[in-house]
Amino acid sequence: MKIFGIDPGLASTGYGVVLHEKGKPVLIEYGCIGTSNAYSQGMRLERIGAELRMLIGRHKPDHIAIEKLFFSKNVKTAMVVSEARGVAMLVAQESKVPVVEFTPPEVKQAVTSYGNAGKREVQKMIALLFNLAGPPEPDDAADAVALAYCCVQNLLYRRSHSTNGAIPRV
Amino acid sequence: MKIFGIDPGLASTGYGVVLHEKGKPVLIEYGCIGTSNAYSQGMRLERIGAELRMLIGRHKPDHIAIEKLFFSKNVKTAMVVSEARGVAMLVAQESKVPVVEFTPPEVKQAVTSYGNAGKREVQKMIALLFNLAGPPEPDDAADAVALAYCCVQNLLYRRSHSTNGAIPRV
Repeated sequence: MKIFGIDPGLASTGYGVVLHEKGKPVLIEYGCIGTSNAYSQGMRLERIGAELRMLIGRHKPDHIAIEKLFFSKNVKTAMVVSEARGVAMLVAQESKVPVVEFTPPEVKQAVTSYGNAGKREVQKMIALLFNLAGPPEPDDAADAVALAYCCVQNLLYRRSHSTNGAIPRV
Repeated sequence: MKIFGIDPGLASTGYGVVLHEKGKPVLIEYGCIGTSNAYSQGMRLERIGAELRMLIGRHKPDHIAIEKLFFSKNVKTAMVVSEARGVAMLVAQESKVPVVEFTPPEVKQAVTSYGNAGKREVQKMIALLFNLAGPPEPDDAADAVALAYCCVQNLLYRRSHSTNGAIPRV
């Protein structure tokens, strides 16, 4: 199975593509869609939408994993991230690929077995799990890879617990 | 000039189309894109995107006015509204129609000449300004009409203050 992870953000939307084949996860591609604040918000959202459409169309994943914001102290930041997240959700939905959402603690738990792990621990584990020389950069790309890894784990677990071997609908 | 106003929301996205011709504003159409929580968030955002695309394509407005959230006490609500707002911004940008944003106090000021006016006062003024028997319903549609009216006022003002009679780029 192939998972496309998205860590949405206006200035930087990370993505990571993880393939699970022959019992192990392989990192296919990762990167970051950066947008400059020299452009209008609409233009930045349009770029995020267009790049995600292109990437999803190229990779044809089986599932798309999107980070679920569940709390933020800074309302303004939360609102801007949510706008980018809305765009990612729309593009994912329009691509007809099933979407799964995970909160940051769920991702940390899946990657490090500890829901309160720090950013660096998660990144180090990602490097270890995928046998990389160092964590994927920038941070948003590493987060998206961690999200895709979490999704693989989650779907494998659910498959092993379903009665007919199929992954239950999400 | 024709303005398409959008008051974004996940459960209900209001819209209102106002034409300014021969020195007065005319209300062309208004309504509300409702989505049920029986559907996934992605499906709801997809419906909002599809309906807005269809409406903007049909009306071919000169400008799109979108409500600018500038503060919310409830972070969760702000996040959900922002996701719908991100979708509206994307669709507006992709339609290539210039987007103008207004905060709720700016809309209230334009409609009632008082930035702290209540919801009911704004709605009553909308009924008066467009010579309607009562305010547009539901509330989100009335808000979108008020937003479109505010945009008309703002563009007329800016046109009258530009040196060559053209509306400056927004």
